[in-house]
Amino acid sequence: MTAYVLKAEPLTRDEFAPFGEVIDTDGAEHFPINRGTIERFHDLARVDAGEGGAALISIVECSHVAGVPLRVPLVERHLLGSQAFVPLGGAPMCVVVAPAGESVGPEDLRAFVGNGSQGVNYRRGTWHMPLVAFEKGQRFVVVDRGGPEDDCEERVFDASLEITVDTGFLPSPGV
Amino acid sequence: MTAYVLKAEPLTRDEFAPFGEVIDTDGAEHFPINRGTIERFHDLARVDAGEGGAALISIVECSHVAGVPLRVPLVERHLLGSQAFVPLGGAPMCVVVAPAGESVGPEDLRAFVGNGSQGVNYRRGTWHMPLVAFEKGQRFVVVDRGGPEDDCEERVFDASLEITVDTGFLPSPGV
Repeated sequence: MTAYVLKAEPLTRDEFAPFGEVIDTDGAEHFPINRGTIERFHDLARVDAGEGGAALISIVECSHVAGVPLRVPLVERHLLGSQAFVPLGGAPMCVVVAPAGESVGPEDLRAFVGNGSQGVNYRRGTWHMPLVAFEKGQRFVVVDRGGPEDDCEERVFDASLEITVDTGFLPSPGV
Repeated sequence: MTAYVLKAEPLTRDEFAPFGEVIDTDGAEHFPINRGTIERFHDLARVDAGEGGAALISIVECSHVAGVPLRVPLVERHLLGSQAFVPLGGAPMCVVVAPAGESVGPEDLRAFVGNGSQGVNYRRGTWHMPLVAFEKGQRFVVVDRGGPEDDCEERVFDASLEITVDTGFLPSPGV
C-alpha cells in the first residue's frame, strides 16, 4: 500500500486557472445593472457545450457525505464540455483535479478547498474527483453539457494506492 | 392614471411553460449518480446562447430592494438567448412576464411568486420585469448569453399606467 496525502490549498482563481474557473464574486469584475438596483459579477465562467450538445441547468443533492479521511479512489473527465458547480445555501467544496491529458496519476493531483460560497467550472478534459459534500442534503447548481453521447470517462486508481485529502478542516463523519 | 393590479400566482412549471422553465427539484426527473452518493435533478432548464454567443455564468447581488407596492414600470426582453436566475441561499422571486412578441401591454402581464428555492429560465424573447429582490444582498446565479451585441430591449409603459403586483406576502420596505 502506497499512501498519498494531498494537502488541500485554498481555492483561488490563479491557482485553479489550469483546471477551469472559480465562480466567486470576490475580486471579480462587476458593474451595476437595472438602474443601479443590482450589481452584476459578470462572466465568472464560460459554459462549453461543444458541438451537437446543449448547455443544461440541473441541481444535484448529496444523499451521502464524504468519508473521513476523504479518499480519492478515482477521477473522471468530460471530453465534450465543461461542468460547473455552484453551492446553493453555502457549502464548502473540496475539489481534486489533475491537468487534462491521457495519463493521470496520484502525483498529478491537486486538492483545493473553497470558502463555502465559491463554485468551480471544470474546463473540458480536466480530471476531477466526483463531487463530494460534507453535509447531507447539500445542493449545487450544475451547468454542463447534455447530448446523446456518454461523456464521462473514469480512471480508477490502483487499489494499492491510498490517496486521501487533508482538507484542513474537520468534515462531518461519513454517512 | 389607470391602475392595474397583477395578482401573483404560485410559480409552477405548467403555468410558467409559455414563458420558460421553472428551475425546481420538486416534481422533477431525478436519478442517482456518483455511485449513489448524489441525486441529480436533471435538465431543469436549457441554456439558449443562440448563434455567435457564449453561455456565461454570472452572479448578481441586489443592492436595493423592491418598493412597496411592487411597481412594474417596464419590461425587457432578450432576443438572442435565454436568461436563467437561481436564488443562492433562498430568496422568494417575484417575476412578471408576458408572451414573446412585438407588442406588450399591461393586459398581457402575469405575475408569479416562487417558494424561495425555485429559479426561472426566461425563454428567448419572453418579456419580463427586471430582477427584483425583497432583501438587500440577495444573490442569484445567472446563466445567460454573452456576445458582442446589446441584447436587452426595454419597453417602458406609459406613465399614466400604474402597474403594481399583489405578491400575496409582505415584502420588506424598499430601500
